[in-house]
Parts: sequence; structure tokens; C-alpha cells
Amino acid sequence: MSEQLWGGRFSKSTDEMINEFQASIQFDKRMYHEDIAGSIAHARMLAKCGIISNDDCQKITDGLKAILADIEAGNFDFSIDLEDIHMNIEKRLTDRIGEAGGRLHTARSRNDQVALDTHMYVRKETADVSKLILDLQKAFVETARKYDDVIMPGYTHLQRAQPILFSHHMLAYFSMLCRDFSRFKGVYERCDIMPLGAGALAGTTFPIDRQMVAKQLNFSAVYPNSLDAVSDRDYIMEFLAAASILMVHLSRLSEEIVLWCSREFSFVELDDAHCTGSSMMPQKKNPDVSELVRGKAGRTIGHLMAMLTTVKGLPLAYNKDLQEDKEGLFDTIDTVKFSLAVYAQLIRGMKVKKETMLKAVQEDFSNATDLADYLVKKGMPFRQAHSVSGKAVHYCIEQHKWLEDMTMEEFKKLSALFEPDVKEAIRPETCVKNRNSYGGTSYAQTQMQLTAADQILKEQQDQLDFYSSRKIKI
Amino acid sequence: MSEQLWGGRFSKSTDEMINEFQASIQFDKRMYHEDIAGSIAHARMLAKCGIISNDDCQKITDGLKAILADIEAGNFDFSIDLEDIHMNIEKRLTDRIGEAGGRLHTARSRNDQVALDTHMYVRKETADVSKLILDLQKAFVETARKYDDVIMPGYTHLQRAQPILFSHHMLAYFSMLCRDFSRFKGVYERCDIMPLGAGALAGTTFPIDRQMVAKQLNFSAVYPNSLDAVSDRDYIMEFLAAASILMVHLSRLSEEIVLWCSREFSFVELDDAHCTGSSMMPQKKNPDVSELVRGKAGRTIGHLMAMLTTVKGLPLAYNKDLQEDKEGLFDTIDTVKFSLAVYAQLIRGMKVKKETMLKAVQEDFSNATDLADYLVKKGMPFRQAHSVSGKAVHYCIEQHKWLEDMTMEEFKKLSALFEPDVKEAIRPETCVKNRNSYGGTSYAQTQMQLTAADQILKEQQDQLDFYSSRKIKI
Amino acid sequence: MSEQLWGGRFSKSTDEMINEFQASIQFDKRMYHEDIAGSIAHARMLAKCGIISNDDCQKITDGLKAILADIEAGNFDFSIDLEDIHMNIEKRLTDRIGEAGGRLHTARSRNDQVALDTHMYVRKETADVSKLILDLQKAFVETARKYDDVIMPGYTHLQRAQPILFSHHMLAYFSMLCRDFSRFKGVYERCDIMPLGAGALAGTTFPIDRQMVAKQLNFSAVYPNSLDAVSDRDYIMEFLAAASILMVHLSRLSEEIVLWCSREFSFVELDDAHCTGSSMMPQKKNPDVSELVRGKAGRTIGHLMAMLTTVKGLPLAYNKDLQEDKEGLFDTIDTVKFSLAVYAQLIRGMKVKKETMLKAVQEDFSNATDLADYLVKKGMPFRQAHSVSGKAVHYCIEQHKWLEDMTMEEFKKLSALFEPDVKEAIRPETCVKNRNSYGGTSYAQTQMQLTAADQILKEQQDQLDFYSSRKIKI
Amino acid sequence: MSEQLWGGRFSKSTDEMINEFQASIQFDKRMYHEDIAGSIAHARMLAKCGIISNDDCQKITDGLKAILADIEAGNFDFSIDLEDIHMNIEKRLTDRIGEAGGRLHTARSRNDQVALDTHMYVRKETADVSKLILDLQKAFVETARKYDDVIMPGYTHLQRAQPILFSHHMLAYFSMLCRDFSRFKGVYERCDIMPLGAGALAGTTFPIDRQMVAKQLNFSAVYPNSLDAVSDRDYIMEFLAAASILMVHLSRLSEEIVLWCSREFSFVELDDAHCTGSSMMPQKKNPDVSELVRGKAGRTIGHLMAMLTTVKGLPLAYNKDLQEDKEGLFDTIDTVKFSLAVYAQLIRGMKVKKETMLKAVQEDFSNATDLADYLVKKGMPFRQAHSVSGKAVHYCIEQHKWLEDMTMEEFKKLSALFEPDVKEAIRPETCVKNRNSYGGTSYAQTQMQLTAADQILKEQQDQLDFYSSRKIKI
Repeated sequence: MSEQLWGGRFSKSTDEMINEFQASIQFDKRMYHEDIAGSIAHARMLAKCGIISNDDCQKITDGLKAILADIEAGNFDFSIDLEDIHMNIEKRLTDRIGEAGGRLHTARSRNDQVALDTHMYVRKETADVSKLILDLQKAFVETARKYDDVIMPGYTHLQRAQPILFSHHMLAYFSMLCRDFSRFKGVYERCDIMPLGAGALAGTTFPIDRQMVAKQLNFSAVYPNSLDAVSDRDYIMEFLAAASILMVHLSRLSEEIVLWCSREFSFVELDDAHCTGSSMMPQKKNPDVSELVRGKAGRTIGHLMAMLTTVKGLPLAYNKDLQEDKEGLFDTIDTVKFSLAVYAQLIRGMKVKKETMLKAVQEDFSNATDLADYLVKKGMPFRQAHSVSGKAVHYCIEQHKWLEDMTMEEFKKLSALFEPDVKEAIRPETCVKNRNSYGGTSYAQTQMQLTAADQILKEQQDQLDFYSSRKIKI
Repeated sequence: MSEQLWGGRFSKSTDEMINEFQASIQFDKRMYHEDIAGSIAHARMLAKCGIISNDDCQKITDGLKAILADIEAGNFDFSIDLEDIHMNIEKRLTDRIGEAGGRLHTARSRNDQVALDTHMYVRKETADVSKLILDLQKAFVETARKYDDVIMPGYTHLQRAQPILFSHHMLAYFSMLCRDFSRFKGVYERCDIMPLGAGALAGTTFPIDRQMVAKQLNFSAVYPNSLDAVSDRDYIMEFLAAASILMVHLSRLSEEIVLWCSREFSFVELDDAHCTGSSMMPQKKNPDVSELVRGKAGRTIGHLMAMLTTVKGLPLAYNKDLQEDKEGLFDTIDTVKFSLAVYAQLIRGMKVKKETMLKAVQEDFSNATDLADYLVKKGMPFRQAHSVSGKAVHYCIEQHKWLEDMTMEEFKKLSALFEPDVKEAIRPETCVKNRNSYGGTSYAQTQMQLTAADQILKEQQDQLDFYSSRKIKI
Repeated sequence: MSEQLWGGRFSKSTDEMINEFQASIQFDKRMYHEDIAGSIAHARMLAKCGIISNDDCQKITDGLKAILADIEAGNFDFSIDLEDIHMNIEKRLTDRIGEAGGRLHTARSRNDQVALDTHMYVRKETADVSKLILDLQKAFVETARKYDDVIMPGYTHLQRAQPILFSHHMLAYFSMLCRDFSRFKGVYERCDIMPLGAGALAGTTFPIDRQMVAKQLNFSAVYPNSLDAVSDRDYIMEFLAAASILMVHLSRLSEEIVLWCSREFSFVELDDAHCTGSSMMPQKKNPDVSELVRGKAGRTIGHLMAMLTTVKGLPLAYNKDLQEDKEGLFDTIDTVKFSLAVYAQLIRGMKVKKETMLKAVQEDFSNATDLADYLVKKGMPFRQAHSVSGKAVHYCIEQHKWLEDMTMEEFKKLSALFEPDVKEAIRPETCVKNRNSYGGTSYAQTQMQLTAADQILKEQQDQLDFYSSRKIKI
Repeated sequence: MSEQLWGGRFSKSTDEMINEFQASIQFDKRMYHEDIAGSIAHARMLAKCGIISNDDCQKITDGLKAILADIEAGNFDFSIDLEDIHMNIEKRLTDRIGEAGGRLHTARSRNDQVALDTHMYVRKETADVSKLILDLQKAFVETARKYDDVIMPGYTHLQRAQPILFSHHMLAYFSMLCRDFSRFKGVYERCDIMPLGAGALAGTTFPIDRQMVAKQLNFSAVYPNSLDAVSDRDYIMEFLAAASILMVHLSRLSEEIVLWCSREFSFVELDDAHCTGSSMMPQKKNPDVSELVRGKAGRTIGHLMAMLTTVKGLPLAYNKDLQEDKEGLFDTIDTVKFSLAVYAQLIRGMKVKKETMLKAVQEDFSNATDLADYLVKKGMPFRQAHSVSGKAVHYCIEQHKWLEDMTMEEFKKLSALFEPDVKEAIRPETCVKNRNSYGGTSYAQTQMQLTAADQILKEQQDQLDFYSSRKIKI
């Protein structure tokens, strides 16, 4: 038999199938901690404001703590007939403490209660994601330091373009993650607003104190408009957007790892722990983890799209469509956290093949820009120098040689400005060393980037400490 | 301890966390029936072709049937260390029958095995979805017959436009679902191709007989290219696209049901079984099911996007990214099946408020087109008649009356062509009756549509019977 | 004949069709101002650093200003053979000033040049969008003030739930837009970083001063990593995400406007300027603008999806796929700006039908929560009071009356706690007045919200002033 | 001054900005041919049914043909004040032939007129896309024939897996395109239904003959439900879905081309016409066309997403949101047609580097499966053979040699089953030749595929001929 608490108005019980369809307990039970913390704060406020007695408040608080202990000990039987985590807990509370349990829901509605729990949950997870971002950033910095003299080809259009430092490449990902960290900070801020007290949509007739609830639960602000408080799903859409951009970054990294692990590139070797084999082909060592993360970027983008599409065109205030906000969110949280965690390991365990990378740089024309720059420094306008360098490349291809192999005669035929110092100017190490503009790939600039990175990591750690200080304990 | 069967090449065991990340057993276990049926067909073919002995084949077949019985009795412990349903079953088989189990995987790879199972699964579910489409179509036809004289306002821009029959409106959804049925037929056909024997990507060196496997498993064709066979995810993308369009249809229906249930429209009353109440507001009777289905359209679209994004840009043949093809697919199947099933119930249980609908038609200007048509039939060019009718509406609004309330003098002032028969011409019933062009809303045309619908349902039932005849039994 | 400036290496000219396919001049010409401003800043820096002569710098600067004048006077013929805005301008410059023009591209690449222009463009448009957000917020505040005593039904599930103030409803949209403003501030900050000097990907061998360029162009920071500088499209993805969330807000507003304009609701009347008629039905007054904006939310979401999908899985640094970043962005900018501008007009021109709204409140059970709250205040636990109120509603429906119509005897039958003051407690005005919790719909709270809104508007205006102060003039 | 034909009801003219926002003439003018053909068919039917005079019909027909000539000669000034192509043409017609022009719109509405034009347009473009698919398929078949003895590594996880024929790889794309051709056939069929006569939504009161219109315009069927006829956008969503899947295929091809063009792979060389250079790096030859097509897959997916999101949740029948159906569709058509056309050229112009491919096969372990298969054929169970082969690979890696380099002693140490014939069994040519299962990569199987492809191409050509026979001429 169905036990919906709101069953008074209805003459027949809701069909079993529909029950299951609209129940959310299967997935929203992961918010049990938030639900209990929120209810305790609400009860204390109700007592403080004289809406319920201190005695009832004590019973409620004790009851909820006992339920928390039950859940964490695995002694709680979640019932699909009670629809969601909120009803499951409230029903159990009433079974346990009687009438006082029936007073807990005074001056609140499921709408603002769900909103509260979800805000707390997203806030917590945003902090956790930020922590994992930081750790992956550290992995990049460590790896950049470890291999700070390795030269590799830099690519555009997947064509070798100019020699760069491997460290420089690692630090590009560090930079991307800085923006991710910053974006999630924005998510945190816009999520750090307390909705309880909005009631179903219009506030409540009871003399409640929303600021007190906010203070107990470490919220920085209270929603100033009750309709908005129960309809707002911005923080979820924004979380999913930030997560999608982050996963796009990791998908780019994954693409590179997959390329680098190919026999054709052979730039890195992953730790066996981050690879798998084949059921049919014994020689295979597949970069599965990277492929999976690359694939999971699609999944996260899909969840973002689902959420935007679902909210689009909904009138105020609450509509049941909004129940669809959780599964995609939860899956995204799991996906992002896993992807970050596994990549921190993978990057740290990755072995860089210095010689292969260097050989790749030596056997190509990625120093052609340096040849052109050489001429410009001797006084030739850039566009003309670019053209001369292009002709040099063309000539070499026909002669099956590299620029380094050209004789001074051959150089002179192309331009009288060439002198013997051209040879030095186009050595890979020189090419790297000379790109010494701010943010460039030179050894000096890369060291500066590393120093700056340490400072950024420290600032971000301060932010994480702030998040920790706001965490709710019961 | 990890037990990956492909572990030979590696010197350390895969990290626990990664194990879980890349395991698929949590969701692909639902394909156990397909996996076993596929393996039995494969084993029989191997024996027939002399690749394994008849004795081994018998052991394998018996062993797999016993495992099937175990799974269906709930006596099978799925292990995450064995990654997926295929490894779980094969390991159990080898535990049970020894060396013969090790021969089952001869001449196949996990790549073509997964492809086979998924094809069989999608084919089966496409048939099931089609059956549910048909049932919902029947619900629309029944409801259209039940209320075949009810007049309601037809809307464009959510403005009342012209009076229509409620039956006509129901049959619009019938028509949409015809196209959905047809689209899923296309999915079935392009999924009904047998991939096994493609090996990892290039075929196999064993003298297998793929047509024999196809015949055992009721496939209409065999993939002619092994690379394509293991890389193809078209049938999944196409299933998701067809499902998304179907869910868009149901979302439109849902929007209308939600509108019609509002106090402002009050056109229908849903059965209590398809509604829920509010935890705070005792008077509420919310059309939750419709809201949820509307919301779930977003979810399905999200899964489609995820899949397209994931496959985009992948080189041939198999990449691990493709493991992401299943969860969104499975969730879409569940969502679509539920939505169709619940709507077949909801539509049949819905009570139509005939009087409210008629009243809505009477108190508006939705007969203004008929007024213009009246003048055209008296010889006025359409654009001019449209303008006169517009002036009549304008005049009525100023006078706070309806077109029906205008006197002959008032009509005459607008055009000398008006005669007393104008009154009859603009009655709602006349407006409906007169839209007697093929496909129009007139009583006669709607009856014709119903007769045609019966014929279509019969043809679709034949298609379902064909699907049933292709179902695999073990 | 083709005129690609990079044509030196090739022996045959690019096919005409492909030319057109990969040209971007059709859409990137709108960045002409940014391109010229960027080039002037670059030239001045080159001169300052001694890389080009002061004389060349002067020629370049004068030449570029003349080209700017030509473009703004409509005297510039954009050529598809010159591919993009950058090449079109540079070629014209060289035609005009000769060899000095060829020196402009020294120490930069098209990759960092495009990145610079796009950053400047997005930064400018983000400021413009923010300004339009502010204006729409003002329209909501003005309208809330104008109608500050209008009561309407608040809805959940499109069912009348509780009476609210129309002003309160308007201010919910004000609140949403505050978050949008804040999100675009985040976009601005993460876009306000100067990429020039990153070269093709690795920096440059010339002794440039990137900080000087940043200062000239009012950038707050310089990209610390050259690879990241040319690969970063975060600011575009983030702009599209912020725009999508904003458009989702406007789509919700649109849905409400469309509902309110329907004959069934009749809550508002739009100005004729924001509606259109029908070619066939003379009586129609369609809220087309709202429908279009609602539809265009889908368009914006599609552009976000396209961008995320395009960037996903791309290796560093630049790939031609990234050229796809502009059309969707530009279209989104136009869409968002238009939608905001037109809504500021529409909201200001909208006529609210106070009586219809009030009547809607009176003829429903949206005071049932107040009835329950009444009992709670008399001492009954909430869950029990909720049930009694539900029974009262049920009884009234059977008796075809409203709660207000119940006699004291009828009330007493349901609970002995009812006293004559119940009548006052359930009047709509009382219901509104009593929801006086912070953020609630009461008159007092709504006035407080309005006062707070004025303060927020002032702070946001300060932000706009800051943006203005950073605008680039040539 | 505004000239909307539906302006009768309104007292002030629509604001300029809004005019532009909701006008569609900028993009829907490309349907001028369909609009004129549809109007001629409509006029002839009206005359045949006695609704307008033969004389008026003649004037209308002549007038429309003259307008067609004007448009095609570039002598037609499209006006944004007239909103769309339909109003532009009708207004011009009335200007030209007077009152008779005003009768053309009798018994139709803009809703069914737009629907008709769009159906005709999509039908035509679907045929054109199909033709381009066929041509690209031919390019694959030709290229497969041209290089029918080239061996390359087959990849899974971008790891070399097993040797395959390059032809086999090309034919995988041929197979994908077969399904695309078939999917567009489904689009054609579900688009080949005539909507005119549905009126605004409910049919018409005039005694029209819709079958006659359908016959004139070569439609196979007539919409049986007028509401559905004007609301249906399935054919657009389905076109976009089919286009997205097709573009996903081309994106996979593009990824491979980009990889193959990299210095690391160097498997192919593209014709200079399909590449571009760099403004900074003279040596670059970038596979831009492939990168662009890969990027444009995202764009197409975005348009699909936009359309699904826009239609989701719209009530019947027409809503202005649906005007958003065209721009994304038109852009998708252009994108798909271009991508197909350019790839047919690129594939035909691509030079395959046979030696590089073969060398890649020789220097890897992609014959490890064949080693395992060898043992299975000697009687070892598959799982055990897989393990032995894995050990052989492991041993070789440690010894820095390939399997081919192992001595018989080394082989024997791993298994006594090895005999001297193992050497032959693991030669790349043998590996390819032995994968002779149906659909496998062997020379014989690939020739069979080519023969089958010829037959398929013939059948598809028949389909194209059918499409051509249905094309509308005026």
C-alpha cells in the first residue's frame, strides 16, 4: 500500500508504476547528510522563534541524529513508496518520536527543502572538485619541473610547427585549470545562497528567521525573493557548464596522451596501471583511461544540454520537470571527480621519452620560422623573409634534406643576408632558447612560469581552506 | 586481487579506482540474455565448421544454459573485477566446464562480441518500443471515438484560432506516432545486421561461417566490412534520434495536458492515479506525470547529444570512448518505454470537460476566419475579406460583444455582401462542419480519419508480429 | 586569381570552392575595429622596442587609420580571396604604404592576432550585453513599482498555489538577471587577458614587450603561457554558457507572457507594437516576440553545444576546427542583445489587468495553505493541519463552493480549533500580507526588495562605468 | 512605413527593430522557387474547383512566372517590411496583376503555405545530398581499387592492432555512407507528404482538392490531419539527425586524414589544393579542409540540438518559435553538401604512401594475434594461446626485437607447439591473406566487397533517378 504523506486529497492510490517513475529516492538518497543538517537547523530556528517548543526541538534533533547514525551504519531501509529522501527521513522521524515529528515541516515546503539540500550538496561538491583540480595542477607543475630540459615539437594542425619545451606544454594545462578553478569559484558563490523559508513559492506566514538558518549552515546570503528561491536552477546549469568546459580540457589532454602513446609518436609511456590489454590481441597496451575521459566529456556535455533543455520554457515557480535536475548533476560530479583524480595519478606516473621527442624535432622543418626571423633581424621585411624561408623548405624537400643540412652556398643563393651564424640560429635548442618573450617557451620563461605557478597554487590553497571552513558538520 | 583475463602482458595490476571507472558490468549486465544467446550460436557455428569439437560445443552450450538459469534465479554474483558481462559469463563458464570454456572465444574478439550483444539488445528494445507506440496510438483512437462530438478551440500562438473537434486534436498525435513507428522501423532495419566474425577489426583467420550465426540469431544480413562492423554506432545514434523526436512529441502532448489541467483552461481532469498532491498546499492536484515526461524529453536529447559528441572525431576502428554508448542508451530505452506506457494509461483515464471546451469556443473570435470566408464566397477577394473581418473584430472588442451578437445593421455597415445567413455561417458547429476539406476538422473528415487509423493500426500490428517472429529464445 | 599571402610553398592555387569554404571574411569582418586597434598597438610596441623604425610605425598607424575611415565610410571592398579580416586589412595596408606594411606582421602570427581580436570583441560585447541586462532589470523594477498592489495567483505545476503580489513575480526575474550580470562579469574577467605575442604557439624570438600592448589595449593581464594563449577558447564557451542560461531565463519569461496573453489567462495585454496578426485569421493578436525569444533560447543552446563539441578532443595548439568559434558566437551576441532590448520595451509597454488577476485569486483554493497554517498557529501539528485543510477543499469541491463560503458549522465539523477569525485569515489580501518572512510576497517585504534592488542597480552601474572606461578608442 | 498585409487589426505600426527580428526574408528567400511552384499549383486547383475563375488563374500563373524570371535575373528587391518570401511574392503579384492577386491566398494560410514550401525544399535538398553521398562513395570505391594491394596497420585505441588492406579501410567508409544514403531515403519518404489545404490549422471551408495539388507537385501522399500538417517539423529534425550522423562519419574520416598527414604517420599526401599554409611558419602544409569538416560536425550537431530544444514542449498547432526551424536547416544543408563535395575531391586527389604504410606494419607487434591463432590451430585453447603470445611480445620488447626476429629456440621455449611454419604465419602479407572470413580484410574478401559495392551503387543510382523524376519544374 502506498504511503504518500500528501494523500489526503485523493480517493485512490497512485499506480505502482507511476510511483516508481516519479520517485527520486534511488538517486537523491545521497543527500541524506544535507537533509538532516538542514532539518536540524530549521528545527532550532523554529524553537528559537517560538514556533515549536524547545522540547519538540530536542526530540527532533535527537531523532535526526539517530537516523543519521542509522544511515551511516547501513541500517536504514529506503522506501520507494516514500518517494524521496526528505519523506523517507521525515516518516522515520515521526515513527520514532511521534507528534513532534509532525511539527518539523512547519513553515517549510518540500520545494524549499529540496532547494536547500541541493544547494548544500552542490556547494560541498564544488569544493571537492576544486580540491581535485588543485591536485592535478600540482601534478602538471611537478612533471614540468621533472622534465624541464626536454624539447618536443609544438604542433598546429597536428603538423610540427616549432620546437617547444615539454614543460611549457604541461604548463598550458596548468593555465587552463586555473580558469577552471576560478569558474568553480563563481559556481560556489552563486550557489552559496540560502533558499529555506521560501515555502512552496511565496514565503511563509510564520515568524521565521532565515538569517539564523543561513548562519547555522554557513551560507553567505539568503535568497531575497521566494519565487526565485524555489525556481532557481542556475547553480546547477552553471556547475554543468563549468564541468563541461573542464571536461573539454581533459578531453584535449586525453587526445594528446592517446596520440603520444601511439607507436607513431611514442612520446610517452604510461604506467601499466593506467592501461589495459586486449582480449584478442596480446601485444596491445591501450590508453583506456584517456580514451574513457575523452568519451566522458561527451557525457557531461549531454547532461548540460539536458538540463538547459529541461528548464527552457518553464513558467514559475516549481514544476515537476525540475526533478530531472539531479541525476545528470550527480553523474557529472562523479565523472568530473574521477577524471581529475585519475589524471593526477596518470600524469605523475607517465614516463617521458626524451630522445624520441628530440629526434622528432631534429627531423623536421619546425625551425623554418627561425630562419625567417633570422632574415628579419638582418633587415628583411617579414612577409619577404617568410617567402624566402618557404622557398628554402621547398628546396630541401626536393633535395631530401633538412634546413640544417644546407650549405652556405645554398643559403646565399636564396638571400645574400645569410651568414654562417644561421646554423646556430636554427638549432632546436637555440629556437627554444630564443623564444624568450613573456609567456614564450624559452628555458628562462618556463622557469618564471613555474615560479608563478607556485604562487597561484598557494592562493588557490587559501581558497580551499576557506571552503573547508564552511563545511557542515552535524 | 584483480582477475583481468587479458592481464598476461602487464607487470602490475590495474589500480582499484580505475577498475571501477572502466568496468561496465554495473550497466551491461542487462544484456546477459543476448550474450548467452550469442555465445551459444557462436559455439555451434565453431563446431559445425570443425574449429572446436562437438563435445566442447555441448559442454559450452550446457554450461551457458546453466548460467542463464542462475542469472534468472538471482544466483549469479556479478564481479566488478571481471569488468563486463562478457567476462563475467566466460569466467564462470570456465570455472564450471574447464578447458572447453577457454575455446569459446576462438575466432572472436570482445569488440565483435559486444557489438553483437548490443545489436541484439537494441533490436529487441526497438520492437518493444514499437509495441508501446502502437498501444498509445490505440489510446488516442479510442479517446477520439469516445468524444467524437466535442468541440474545442484550436490554437495557434496559444491564441484561440478556429473551432476544432477534440477528436481531430487527438488524431494529430496519432499521426505523429505513425511517423515514430516508421522511424523505429528504420532503426530496426539498420540494426538488424550481424557483426560477429569481424574479430577485433580485421576478421579472423579461422574458417568461420558468419551466415550460420546470423541465421541462428534471426539477423537479416551480415556486416560486409569488419572494420565498420566493430566501429559502427549508427544504430545507437539513430535509436537516440528517433527516441528524441518521439519524446519531443510527448513533450508537446505534456505541455497541452498541463495547460488543460490548469484552472484557467480546465479542459480535462486526470485520474487521481496520474496526479500527485503537495506537501504544503492541500488543494493541489498536480499533473506530475506530464511534467516529468516533458522534463524527460530534455534528458533523452541530452543522451543523443552525448553520443554524437562522443563518436565525433574518433578514428577507426574501436576506441574505448565507445564504451560510453550504453548507459545513455539504456536510460533512454527505460525513459521512452515508461513514458509511452504511462501515457497510454493517462489518455485512457482522462475525463474531457465538454461544456467547458464548448464555452471557450463560444466566447471568442475564433469564427472570424469563417466570417471572412463567408464574404469570399459572396465574391470578395480574400485579402479584402480578411480586412473586413478584422474590422468587425475590432468593432466588437470596442463594444464588448462577440461576432454572434452583431446586428444585421452593424454587419451591413461593414459590407453590403452580408445577408442574414451570416449568423448560421459563424456558429461554432457550422465552422467545424464546414471545414470539410480532406484532413480538415469536420465531423465527416474526422470519421474518415478514424477509419483510416484502424487500417494503419492493422498494418502496424503486422509489423509487430514480424518483430515477434524474430525474437530470440534460448 | 588567388592571392593567399602564404602561397609561397605551394605549386598550385587552392580550389575556388575550398577557398570559399574556409574563408571567414563573410563573418569576421565585424571585428575590423579590433583588428586595427590591435595592429596599431602592436606597431607602436615594435617601434618602442626597436624592432621596426619609428618612421615605419608612423606609416603603419596612419595607413590603418585611413583604412578604418574607409571601412566606416563603406569604401572598403572585402575580398574572399584574402580569406579573413586580418589579411584583407594587411593587404590593403601594404598596397597603400608599401614595404612598411610588410613589417607589421613581425613578431606575431595569425594565431595570436585572431586571438587578440576575438578577446577584444568578446570583452566589448560582454560589456554591451551587461548594459542591456541592467536596462531590463530596471524595466522589471519600474513595472514592479507601477503595479505594487496587484495580487495574482502564484503557480506551481501551473496550478494556482498561493496568492502573490505581481511585483514579487517581476522581482523574481530581477533576481535571475542579477546572477546573469554576475556571470557575465566572470566572462569579462576571464576574457580580459592579452594573447598577442604568443606567436603561432611558442612565443617569438623578437624582444617584444607584451605588457605594453596590454596597457595600450586596456587589458588587465597577459597570458603567461603561449600555447594556452592561442588554444584557449574558454572565454567563448563561457560566454555561450552564460548566454544560454540568460536565454533560458528569458524563455521562462516568454512562456509566462504567452500564457498571460492567452484568452484563458488574460492577465496582461501587450502593446500592439510587440504583437503580430494572422494572414488568415483576422482576430489574432499573437505574442510573436515572446514566442521568438523562447524559440531562440534553443538556438543559443545549440551554439553552445556546437562549440563544446567542436573543441572537445582537439590536441594543442591551434587547429583549423577552431575557426568554427565565431559564427555561433556572433549569432548568439546578436540574439541575446536583441532579446534583452526587445524585452525591456515589451515589459515597459505591458498593461496588467488587475481585476482579472484578482478574480483568479478569489475563485480558487490557493488559500488552503493559510487555512492549514491557521490551525498550526492554534496548536495543531503541521502534518495534521495539512490533512484537515485537504478535507475542507475536498468538501468544498463536492459542494461547489470556495473555502470563503464555508459556514462556521462546516468549519467546526472539521476541527474544533476553528474560530470566526478564520474568515479573515483566508482572504487573499491577508494571505499576501501574512507571508512576511524575509523574501516573502508580503507588501512590506516587496517594498524592501525594491529598495534593495535600487542599491544593486547602482552597484551594477558602477561596474558598467568600469567597462566603459576600458573601451578602446582609436 | 510598414506594410504588413495583416495590419488591419492594429492601431500602431510594429516597431522597426522587432520587424527585423521577426522577419525571415533574409534567409527564406532561398525558397522562392518552391513558393512560386506551390502557388501555381494552388491557383490551378482553385480554378479547377471553381473557387476562382480561369481568367484569374491565368493572370496569377503568368504573374508568378514573371516574378520567377525577375528573381532569377536578379531583378527582385526583397523587402524586410514584407517579412518573408511568401509576402514578398504575393505583394509583388498584387502590384502587378491587381485584384486577382488578392484571390490567390483563398483557402490557404501562411501556415500551410510555409509548410508546403519547406517540404518541397527539404525534399529537393535531400535528393541533392543523396547524390553527393553517392559520388563520395564512388570516390572511396575508386580509391580502394587504385590501391588494392596496399597493407597498412589497422588500429584500435590508436594502437597498431592487426595488418589490414588500405582498400578495406576505404570500404568501411563506403559502408557507413550506405547507411547514410538509406537514412536520407527515410527522410525523403517522411517529407514527401503534402500539407497545403490544412489552412491555419483546421482545414478550410472551401471545396478544395488537395490530391490535385499533391499530384501537380509530385507528392506521394497528403497529410491526413490538418493540425499535424502545420505543426509537423519531424522531417526537419530527422534531416538534421541524419545530417549529424553523416557529419560524425566525415569527422571520423577527417580525424584519420589529419593523423595520416602528420609527420609521425605520413601515410598520405594531400593535393596542395586541399591544404593551406601558415602566415608565420613557411614549412607548414595544413590539412585545413579536414579540420574544418571535423569542426563543422559540431556545428551540425548544434543545429540538431537547437531544433529539438525549440520544438520541445510547444503546444499545437503553430507557434512562432517554429520560425526558428529554417536557418539551422539551411546552414546544415550547405555544410553537408560542401563537406561531401570537397571530400569526393580530396579522396580522389590523395596520394597514398605505400612504403610508409608497409614499414609501419613491419615494425610492430600487430601480428601477435596471428601468433596466438597459430597455436590455437595447433590445438591450444584460445585463452592459453593468447597468454603465450603475450609472453612472446613481452620477451621481444625486453630484447628489442620483433616477433619475426625470434629464433626457433626462443619460440620453442614458450611452447612446444611452435614449428618453423610459424615464420610464414606471422608475415604481414600472410596475416592479411588469412583473414579470409566474410567481411574480413583478405585480398579475396576485399575484391568481393568491391564487386558488391558496384551493385549497391547501381541500386542507389536508381533511387537518385527516382528522385530526379520527382523534381518540380515550372
